Order: sequence, then structure tokens, then C-alpha cells
Amino acid sequence: MDFSPSDKAVDIARRLDRFMRKEVEPVEPEYHRELAAMDDPWQVLPVIGELKAKAREAGLWNLFLPDEELGEGLSNLDYAPMAERMGRSLIAPEIFNCNAPDTGNMEVLYHYGSDEQKAQWLKPLLAGEIRSAFCMTEPEVASADATNMQATAIVEGDEVVLNGRKWWSTGIGHPDCKVVIFMGLTDAEADRHYRHSMVLVPVDTPGVKIERMLNAMGFHDAPYGHGEVSFTDVRLPKSAIIAGPGKGFEIAQGRLGPGRIHHCMRLIGLAEHALELACRRSLEREAFGRPLAKLGGNSEKIGQARIAIEQARLLVLKAAWSLDHRGIARSMSEVSQIKAAVPSMAQDVIDMAMQLHGGAGMSDDFPLAAAWTGARALRIADGPDEVHKALVARMELARYRP
Amino acid sequence: MDFSPSDKAVDIARRLDRFMRKEVEPVEPEYHRELAAMDDPWQVLPVIGELKAKAREAGLWNLFLPDEELGEGLSNLDYAPMAERMGRSLIAPEIFNCNAPDTGNMEVLYHYGSDEQKAQWLKPLLAGEIRSAFCMTEPEVASADATNMQATAIVEGDEVVLNGRKWWSTGIGHPDCKVVIFMGLTDAEADRHYRHSMVLVPVDTPGVKIERMLNAMGFHDAPYGHGEVSFTDVRLPKSAIIAGPGKGFEIAQGRLGPGRIHHCMRLIGLAEHALELACRRSLEREAFGRPLAKLGGNSEKIGQARIAIEQARLLVLKAAWSLDHRGIARSMSEVSQIKAAVPSMAQDVIDMAMQLHGGAGMSDDFPLAAAWTGARALRIADGPDEVHKALVARMELARYRP
Amino acid sequence: MDFSPSDKAVDIARRLDRFMRKEVEPVEPEYHRELAAMDDPWQVLPVIGELKAKAREAGLWNLFLPDEELGEGLSNLDYAPMAERMGRSLIAPEIFNCNAPDTGNMEVLYHYGSDEQKAQWLKPLLAGEIRSAFCMTEPEVASADATNMQATAIVEGDEVVLNGRKWWSTGIGHPDCKVVIFMGLTDAEADRHYRHSMVLVPVDTPGVKIERMLNAMGFHDAPYGHGEVSFTDVRLPKSAIIAGPGKGFEIAQGRLGPGRIHHCMRLIGLAEHALELACRRSLEREAFGRPLAKLGGNSEKIGQARIAIEQARLLVLKAAWSLDHRGIARSMSEVSQIKAAVPSMAQDVIDMAMQLHGGAGMSDDFPLAAAWTGARALRIADGPDEVHKALVARMELARYRP
Amino acid sequence: MDFSPSDKAVDIARRLDRFMRKEVEPVEPEYHRELAAMDDPWQVLPVIGELKAKAREAGLWNLFLPDEELGEGLSNLDYAPMAERMGRSLIAPEIFNCNAPDTGNMEVLYHYGSDEQKAQWLKPLLAGEIRSAFCMTEPEVASADATNMQATAIVEGDEVVLNGRKWWSTGIGHPDCKVVIFMGLTDAEADRHYRHSMVLVPVDTPGVKIERMLNAMGFHDAPYGHGEVSFTDVRLPKSAIIAGPGKGFEIAQGRLGPGRIHHCMRLIGLAEHALELACRRSLEREAFGRPLAKLGGNSEKIGQARIAIEQARLLVLKAAWSLDHRGIARSMSEVSQIKAAVPSMAQDVIDMAMQLHGGAGMSDDFPLAAAWTGARALRIADGPDEVHKALVARMELARYRP
Repeated sequence: MDFSPSDKAVDIARRLDRFMRKEVEPVEPEYHRELAAMDDPWQVLPVIGELKAKAREAGLWNLFLPDEELGEGLSNLDYAPMAERMGRSLIAPEIFNCNAPDTGNMEVLYHYGSDEQKAQWLKPLLAGEIRSAFCMTEPEVASADATNMQATAIVEGDEVVLNGRKWWSTGIGHPDCKVVIFMGLTDAEADRHYRHSMVLVPVDTPGVKIERMLNAMGFHDAPYGHGEVSFTDVRLPKSAIIAGPGKGFEIAQGRLGPGRIHHCMRLIGLAEHALELACRRSLEREAFGRPLAKLGGNSEKIGQARIAIEQARLLVLKAAWSLDHRGIARSMSEVSQIKAAVPSMAQDVIDMAMQLHGGAGMSDDFPLAAAWTGARALRIADGPDEVHKALVARMELARYRP
Repeated sequence: MDFSPSDKAVDIARRLDRFMRKEVEPVEPEYHRELAAMDDPWQVLPVIGELKAKAREAGLWNLFLPDEELGEGLSNLDYAPMAERMGRSLIAPEIFNCNAPDTGNMEVLYHYGSDEQKAQWLKPLLAGEIRSAFCMTEPEVASADATNMQATAIVEGDEVVLNGRKWWSTGIGHPDCKVVIFMGLTDAEADRHYRHSMVLVPVDTPGVKIERMLNAMGFHDAPYGHGEVSFTDVRLPKSAIIAGPGKGFEIAQGRLGPGRIHHCMRLIGLAEHALELACRRSLEREAFGRPLAKLGGNSEKIGQARIAIEQARLLVLKAAWSLDHRGIARSMSEVSQIKAAVPSMAQDVIDMAMQLHGGAGMSDDFPLAAAWTGARALRIADGPDEVHKALVARMELARYRP
Repeated sequence: MDFSPSDKAVDIARRLDRFMRKEVEPVEPEYHRELAAMDDPWQVLPVIGELKAKAREAGLWNLFLPDEELGEGLSNLDYAPMAERMGRSLIAPEIFNCNAPDTGNMEVLYHYGSDEQKAQWLKPLLAGEIRSAFCMTEPEVASADATNMQATAIVEGDEVVLNGRKWWSTGIGHPDCKVVIFMGLTDAEADRHYRHSMVLVPVDTPGVKIERMLNAMGFHDAPYGHGEVSFTDVRLPKSAIIAGPGKGFEIAQGRLGPGRIHHCMRLIGLAEHALELACRRSLEREAFGRPLAKLGGNSEKIGQARIAIEQARLLVLKAAWSLDHRGIARSMSEVSQIKAAVPSMAQDVIDMAMQLHGGAGMSDDFPLAAAWTGARALRIADGPDEVHKALVARMELARYRP
Repeated sequence: MDFSPSDKAVDIARRLDRFMRKEVEPVEPEYHRELAAMDDPWQVLPVIGELKAKAREAGLWNLFLPDEELGEGLSNLDYAPMAERMGRSLIAPEIFNCNAPDTGNMEVLYHYGSDEQKAQWLKPLLAGEIRSAFCMTEPEVASADATNMQATAIVEGDEVVLNGRKWWSTGIGHPDCKVVIFMGLTDAEADRHYRHSMVLVPVDTPGVKIERMLNAMGFHDAPYGHGEVSFTDVRLPKSAIIAGPGKGFEIAQGRLGPGRIHHCMRLIGLAEHALELACRRSLEREAFGRPLAKLGGNSEKIGQARIAIEQARLLVLKAAWSLDHRGIARSMSEVSQIKAAVPSMAQDVIDMAMQLHGGAGMSDDFPLAAAWTGARALRIADGPDEVHKALVARMELARYRP
């Protein structure tokens, strides 16, 4: 079990770090201030486009994609530390064309898309010219259980007809979001794993309506945002179905492995950033005659945070290594382990950092409140903690079943 | 140690409950929708004024004030369950003229104000005609240690001159907010407990400037809000000082006892509301063929939440009882105990309820995100948990010191 | 909800405290040393008999029994603080004839015993002349579910025949233990709550065999001990059945309410004692130039322990009050709440105290290891935490069931 | 960072596993039963000697020692999984001559011993002919702070004179324990890190007295045991000092790195064993009509335990890798991280397993109580958790210090 990145990855990581320090981090505070001051925050500030161009030129583009030509041919293990590095910033992932859910959607198209689908959607996504969203979760049912899904994708002759209501469609508020991947029930009689289809839906298709943008813990997360979207008799050619009817579940499984690695590594980046802020603050501020770092249990909490982050990172690296070497089917427990462990670790570390910042920690002056919200959301998104722990337990118990 | 409320309190509590169920709760969802839809949410919707009038007419007014004439002469123990009842709603406290920080400010004026101060500020506050704010916490220092305070209130002849910057001045965004209580350093040479003064400052005094309104975990909390306020050479007659120069600390101590009871009981109301929502949701929603209530550890978590709430409520009742019977000076540990215990209990219960709601829990469709933010904020406001635990420990250790 | 004890209880509690300080606590360390040095610790040291005589003479006898004549007519609420006071010592309960499981067994006989049963067993138990045990838990099944019970108590003509194997029969190692209450299945066809019987079994009845004495976390807990006991064709007259065949479940329910109050209050006494030791130790010992009390998070932990104990005590008082005023049937949730909350609270507080004592805390030089074991055991005995939390949740959810 | 063991280590680990399954595990239950039944458990049962001979013959001997000739030349990373494998059993470490504190003592002699010291003590220790103990912790002071040490090792001419009292000298009860390493203050005026000396003391030297054997949480841990030992004017030739006077601190530092890896990996073995028992039990036992594994939150807890163990193991492997590649001086934080994280992880997992076993878990029928005690002790031994967290925090904060 070798966690060392390839030489190529070491080189890219070094350049990525320099780019982050030189190009991204210096402009980020001003970016957020500017965005916060706008009447309509649902737009892309010019600086993003400039940075994207620079990143692409620097060869720091589509790093997530394991393809030699379209990306840089990096393994999950290679990419993981880069996701962590980007995760320290809220804008970095987009700049390197590595932001969710576009990464997952690109992977789906890369692995399962037809040539036509690739030409139409994968190409502009890889070029960072458009963005996309993923429409799976539904407001009316507990979506942790996929069999609850009520939306339908019915094949009628040469067409597929979509109906249903989705929400938490992240990124749909972005002005460049042109396409969504919609998941719906195609054949209720089929085997449990072959009932659903994934369909590529241009956002401007008649019948698609963004009902509203949702706040997550008070944050609208513009310009990406989280949408509630209704699909009413949306008709598309059958060729819009990815990999054919009934393949939705299979695609979803394949999509989720790397996606969870990315999410978790970005969270580790957030947690590291929070810990750094906590350390700096507790050295700078004084109360009762001593720096906060020397007061009460603060130092113990800092030590504990370091330990928690280290353990979480190693667990994610192990899951990445397992995906690379054993494939998703033999890494199910590993992937669920990180999904159950990392968001709540990050939530705790960030909460600790907020506490050390006093009121400032909850304000927009520090990225902690937004970071906390991101971590909290991931305890639910892509399956709640409880579902992942249950899967881990099921596989554990299976070893001893008579 | 008798926790039974007086007969009078039982009667008022019953009427309060009826008013909440008949008048407040039915209109609250629409109120929040309407407010959320407004371009400028810093205003009072007419329904609030109507409900205030009704509440006052019904004798459900200023219940927090232990005065027979101005309030209803209720003890802390009597009032505690009413604060819990109001705490289930975000708008109720204002409707009954029982919202922070006005309650604390009215108490200060009631106990320490001059006749002139009472006539000018207490009267309209008690009538619900104006609102107020409290300016203590500062952005540049760790305010948990009061001796860090940098703002000054210097007596010059017949005047007092204020300078400094305060933040988290809650309620200052309200259009009716006409006065703030400002705390500043008057005499750095005096004994540690006699250095600070509290000053009544009309919001429109020259030199007072609301620099900006702060978000708390993404929420602007309009129309109350949290302000960052600068005071630049603000000149007021010396008579604006409450109880005379150097009395700030003494007043603060007296103010905080009942205020912490109120805060904690409202949080218990919030936690109860969250638990109710969690129960209802977990009975209604199904996954994997069973209601959420029967899945995995959910029921254990519900049981644990009930136990945690019960313990917290009893602890607050004990602190209220202690305030009533032994006074603030002999209830310091009790008051710090609840301040350290209740917000984090509420945060945990609400977090659990959010998790059971999936994505909905973090959205504005449920009051959980706002409730969570309220609980989280109170782990910092009025002294962070750590400071209160340290005080409890200090008093505990004092029993055994040689 | 008045938690004040009656005047009579106040007086007894004061005398009890004096007796503890003057008579019990001074001799306890020597008692444990002497016992530890014996080859056969399964005996009663003379000092116990002397103290029992003194306690009885002082009117500090059978305080647990709510009967005016046989005990002192104290309510559960009255007795609770006395159980806490005794709980600080491992030998005190026996000295006041208030130790488990004799208290529960005496209550069973008091409420359900025939005159003959009372004359034969209740009288000498009340006099402290004999001891008893309770045989319910079984090694072969998960006893948390009473319907799993395999032991049988079959009525054959005028006789009842017992078979089965029980363990964790606490107190059976005591040389004065003369009788056990055995619970077994009488009629598998009867309604779930009327299948079992409780039978009084003299320890020397043919067929009763103490197979072995069990260690609990390394402790044999002599001279009380925990036995594994086999019953092989044990024949007794039918009159040995308490309250007649099939009443076992009903009796068990009635027995458990007060018993859980006692257990929990004794644990609170243990936790208080542990906290006192932690405070004293952390003031006396120094490391890195400061007393432990000033190092790192120690003081926070002490504060937290105080808060946890306060909350737990209040919860138990509420359950006692509920038992007194509303009866066991309407106090089911309250009783399960304390059973789920208090042992794990005590375990945590004692663990913290052990940590502050370093290696000494785990040795026999301090009562912490034994206290910890007592608390840990009660997370399982009388129903594991999980079962009690589930009951609390069931009653909580029932409020919202359609 | 490559966690893969060398080919040689893979081969040895495979043979070790086979030996454990074929030779050790089948005899262990009977071993414990036999030992428990003895009047004097302070002796070595013949089976141990037989197994030691077999292990040595099989080349499974002194695996911990990184020397090619005396051991097998394994790195810390290579040896770590073997320590885990042995850790599942309480007797295995001795069988492979890999038990604490002999391993640490052998390392000290290997790295710092004179030729004479090696001939006299290292040789028979490596041959498993004698055992040893380590005398550092003292009863009268907080030993977490080494500067508190009161014992003295004063050089007088050609002799060194020892005085002081030590406790928790583990292994000193073993009949083969012939030598102890004693640490004492030699020169109070020297630099803080050069004040202490380590001295080799034959157990039968006049003035050495085992005052008593200590129980740890009720367990005497025979035949190893934990002794309290007094040293009164113990005179030895100066050549008994290891590496010369004043080198105690330096040796201690070097000794602790690998030792903590070993301890932690053995604990992970214990935790794995506890989890296996928990899984098996929860599949076998039923309550309320379902196996325990399907009841309430049990499955979540099993999932959580798997996640916790995985993270802990990876953290220890990282520390081992760091020791191997960067040396102890650059691995201080890593080593303290595992020491702070692993024992409490193991304590929690074992506590969960005990709970799933009901009363059986606390009895001697399962190795859980002993395992729990081992884990609990290591939260104190070799420095309490708090000290290690503080060290981790100190190094974390140092990165940001101006």
C-alpha cells in the first residue's frame, strides 16, 4: 500500500500549490467582497475567467480526469492531494475545471457517453465553456433510499419523457449551466438495479423549470447555488439517455467512488485551513493575560484536531489507493468509510475553529461559516452518514455470517 | 427546592400557550415567506404590530419583568416556562415584548436607571414603541475577557465622550431601534470592577455609525440583525451614564443572570420544537421499507434527545430558583452551568433533527437551520462555553482549596 | 414539582450524614485493607456487625422502605438524597440495611408476599439477620428481552419445580445470604405478561448450586459477589411462589422503579465522590510548574463534571417525584431516562477522575476503579442503556403517531 | 509514503499468523483457566516454555529488534502488523520474546549498553531466559513531568547509589524477572536533559524491595504484574549505569518511539479482536425477535468501530514509516499523535463490544474486561493523553509562531 504520488503528480502538485499561492489566494478575499456587494450575485466575475485561462495554460486543468490526453492521466491517489489543495479555497475548484458536480458528470460522459453525447457535452465541459448539474435527490421522499425515487424517465418510441421534481441540484444557478443529468424511473418491473435511467437534459428544454433556489444554512452559495427543479413532460430523443435505459444505477455507482474521494479531500483541505486559522488566532488574541493558545483546553483541542485530520487524510488516501488498485466493486466499504468519517470530522474541526474566533468565526469575515456549512451538507449529500455506516457494518458482519 | 410555578403563572402560561397556538403559530410560516420575498427585509411587517396589540390587550406583555405593576410580578421560575414557550417561535418574543436585548436593557433601566432615564427610555420600551441594542463586544479583542475592552467612555466636565468600535450589536437593524446601551472604559486606574461605565446613546447621536450589518452563519436575521457600530467622539450629557461612572461591571453582572435564564429557556423551546419535528418526520418518511424512526440508531438518538432536554430544563429551573431565592451573587455557578450546558445541548438536538430531515433540514423550509444558528451563536455570546466552564470549575475547586 | 424533602427526611438526612462522617468513613479504608489481606474474603468483618447495630439503634435503618412502622415512611424523593449519601461508600448501604438486591427483594415481599412469606423472609431481612439474592439474568440468552428467559418454574400439584441457570446473582456470595428470588417461565401459552413466576428459594434447597463466582472487570466484589447458579429439579411447595403463578412480570415492573432510583442516586454519590477526589488531587499535585487544576483542559473537565452531575441528580429527583405522585405506570419514561443517563454519566466522571490520578487511579489505593466498575455494570444490569433509550423514544414518538 | 512491508516481512507475517492460529490461540483459553485456578498465579505454566521453544525454532523470535543477526532486521513498518497480530492475545508477546517492557529494555541495551552490559543482560534477554522491568514512574509525584522525579542515582566514587520509590513496574512479578532498569536523578544542577541516569539493577541487589503488587482495575495481571518497588541505599558499580551518568533522558526518548508503535499496534490487535467478538455475538444472540446486529444503533456502532480502527492503524503505520525514514527527532508529533489517539480508540471499541455482550462482557469468560483495562492503562502509561495532545499542539502552533 504505497501512498506516494507519481513523479508527474509531484510536479503538478508543486505547480498547483504555487498557482494557488500566487494567483488564487491573493484575489479571493476581494472576490468574495465584490460578490457580496452585488445586487445579483448569480454571475461570474471576470477574475474567474482570467484565472481559468491562466490555469489551463499552466497545464493545471481537468486534473481529476484519469485520461492521459483529456486530463493528465493521474490516478485517484495522485489527484487526492490536489483536491485537498483546491479545497482550501471556495473558488479554486472551478478555476482548475475540477468542481463538483461537473467532475462527476464529465466522468459519467467519459465512461458511458456516446460519441455524440461526448461531442455535444463532454467537449465544452472539458473546455470549461459550460457547466452542468445533477438532478437526483427529490423533495418528497427520503432519497437516501434510491428505490424511493418518484421521478420518471419513460421511453415512448424514439423519445424519453421526463417527469418529476428534484432539488439540491447544485450548480444550476450558474449562468453557464447548460445541461443537467436527470435520473428517473424507467421500468418499475425490472430488477432493482436496472430500473433507472440517466438522461442528459439541456437546461432550456421545454418543461424544465427552476422553481426556486434553496438556501443551505442561510447561504445561497451563488453563483453556483442549489436549485429545486421541476420536470414536466420533458421530451427528448432517446439518444439523450446515457448508456441506454436502465443503466442509471450502474452509472451512479461508478460515479460515486471518485466523487467521494474528491469531496472528502476538499473537506480535508477545508479542515486544514480551519485549523491554520485557529492556530493563528489563538496565538494572536489574548484573554486573561495569556494568548488563547495557552488558555484552558484550547491547546488540547488543537492537538486533537491535528490528530483527527491526519487520520482522516490517511483513510481517504487508502480509499483512493483501493479504487486505483482494486476497483470500485471491491472498495465499497472503503468509500463509505470516508464518506461517514470525513464530513463529521471536518464539521468538528471547523466548529472548534469558529469557537476560537468568537463572534468573528460566525461572520462572513472568515471562511469558517461557509466551510462549516459545506461540511455539514456533506453529512447528508451523497447518502447520509447513517447509510454509509450501515453499509460498512453490513460488510463487516458479512465476514462472520455463518 | 420547589419548581412549581405560582397559580398566577399557571394561569398566564395557559393563556400564553393558547395565544401561541391561535394567533402566532398559524401566521408564522407566511410571515417568514413574506419577509424572505422582500427586497428590503429591514422592516416590521404589519402583522407584528397587530399581534403586539392583541398580546398587550390579553395581558401577555412584559412578562419577564418581576414588577407587579409594570409587568406581572413573575419570578424567574414563573417566567422560565413562558420563555421556553416563546422560544419555539422566532417572532414570539417580540410580540410579547420579551425579546433580547430589550428585556435586559429594560431590566437595567428598571434597576439602575434615573427617573429621567426611565421616563425617556424605559417607558417607550415597556410600551413596545421603540427597541434597543446593547454594545459591548468588540471586533479587535477577545471580549470574553472584559478587561480587554478598548472602547472608552471618558467623563469631561458635564459630558461623557464615547469612542470605540462594537459589533454583534443585536437588534440594531430594527427600524424601531432608537437607543443603545454602550459600555466603555472610564477609568483605567480604578479597581478592576469599577473601571467601566454604561451609557444610554440615542442611535441618531452624531458620531454613531452603523458600519455594516453582519451575517451569522449566513443569516442576516432581519429585521433585527447584528450590527458593527463605530462611536467617534460621541458626546452626551453625563446624565446619560447609568448609575454613574464606573458602575458598568456591577450592572452587567446583575443584567446577565435573568438574561441567561431567558436565553437558555428559549433554546430549550427551540430544542423541543426540533425534537417534535424530528419525531414527526421520522414517522412520516420511509426508507428501506421502514419509517425512519425504526431505522438504525434513529430511535436511540430520539431517546437521547429527550433525556438531554429534560436534564437541561431542570438545570435551568434550578438556576432560576436559585436566582429567586439566593440572588445572583450566590448563583454564579448555577448561571454559568446553564450557559455552558444548554446551547451545546440545543445545537446537538437540532443537528440530529436536521440530519433526520435530510436536505430539507438545512433549507429555509424548516426552522432548523435558523434554530441551529441561534444555538451556535449562544455558545459564544454572553461568554463562550469555555469561560463558563472555567468559572464553574473555579467555584468547585474553591471548596477544596486548603 | 417540589423537590424539597419532608422535615422528617431533612432530620434523618442530617443524622445520616453525621453517622457517615463519624462512624463509616473513618473505618472504611482499614476495612478494605483488612478484607484485601484475607485469604478468604467471603466473610463479614466484625466491624460491619457493630456498625449495623449502631445504625439500627440510631434509627438509620431500612430507610428505603416507605412504610411508617417497618421503615421510616419516607417517599422516594425523601430517600433519594440518602441513597446518594450512602453511595459514596461501598459498605454503607449494608450498614443501613439498604443494599441491593435486598432492598428490592424486601419491597417485593412487602407488597406481594403472603403472611407466611413475610414471617419467614421479610422479618429477618428487615432485621438485617439474613441477606438475599435475585436470580433473573441468564448466561445463554440476551436477557434484556425478558421473553428470552429459558429457566422454568413449573407447577406440579402442590409443588413448583425449578430448572435453569442464572448468573450475575449479586450478593449470593455473602455468608448470610439465605434466600433467592428466582424468576422462571410457568406458562408459555399465557399472555406475554403473565407467563413468569417469582419463587422464594432457600439457598440450601437441594438442586440449587452456586457453580462459580464471577469477576466483574476483575473484581470479585467479596463478600457480596456475583454468582452463576444452577437450579436442577428444585422442588418447593407452591406457597413459595410470590403472589401466585404468572405474576412475575407484574412484580418485576413494580420492583424496578424504586430500585432504579436507588441505583442511580448511589451512582451520583459515587460520581460526587470521584469529583471530590479529582479536585483534591488536581490541587495537590503539580506538573510543569503548575497544579494539575491549572493545566490544559483539566479545569474545563472539572466544570463539565459538575454540570453533568447536577443535571443527572435533578433528573433522578424528577423521576422520584414522578414515582411518588404519579405511580410507576405513568413514570415509565422517567425511570428509563435515568437508567439510560446516570450510569454513563458516572462512568465518564469517574474516568476523568482516574485520569487525573494517573496510575494511582487504577490501583486499589483509591476507590475509583471499583466505582468505575460499578457504574459500568449498571449500563448493562437492569436493562442495557440501549433498551431504555428505545423505551424513551417509543413513548416520545407515541405523542406524534397519527 | 509506502506502507507495504518488505518481502521478508510478508513471509514472516504469514508464518506468524499460522503459528498464532495453530499453536497459540487453541491453547489460550485453557491457559487462562488453569492460571485462574492456581493458588499462586505468579508462575510460568509449562505451555509457555514449550511455545517459546517452538517459536524460536520457527524463526519467530525477537522480531521487534531491527538487527539482522540478533533479530530479523525488520523495520518498524515491517514489525507493526506483527505486533498487531500478537496483540490479539495476552500471552503471544512473551512467546515470541516480544513483550513489553523487555523489548524496550533490550533496545536500550542494544543501542546504549556496554559490551559487558550486553553480555550480562542483553544476551539472556534475547534468549528469553530472563525477563526485566522498568522503574520510572513514582507514586509521590505526577510522573508525566519527568522533572518531578524524586528518585536519585548518585555517583560516589566508583559506585552509584540508588534511593527512591517506583511503582507500576510492570513485569516485576514474573519469576524470571532478574533485572530492572532504574531511572533516577544524578545531577540536579545539570541541564534539564542531562540530569538523570539509567541504571541496571539486579533484582536481588540488597536494598531493592518489592513492597507490593498493584491491581490495575482489579486485575493483578499475573504472572507479570505491576510492582511498587523501593530502593534504599542500593549500591552498584558505576559500570551499571547505561551510557554513563546523565544520559537517562536521551535514552528514554530513543526508547519510547518504537515502544509506542508496539503498544499502539498491540492495542489495534485488541480492538480488532473486540470488534470480531462484537460481530459474532451480535449475529448469534437475539432479542425482541431480531439478532442484536439488527437492533437499534448496534450496526451503526459496528460501522463506526471499523472506521475508527482503520484510521488508527493508518496513523500508526505513518508514525512507524516516519520513525524508519526520518528518525525519532523528526517524528515526535507523529509518535505523540498515536499515543494520544489509539488507546482511547481501543477503549471505546472494547466498551462497545462489552456492551453487546451484556454481563458476559465484563466477566472473565471473554477477554474484553482485560483488554479494556489494557487500553485504559495506556491512556496513562508512557505519558497521559493530555501530555501527548499538548505536545502535538505545541508543534502545530510552532508552525505559525511569528
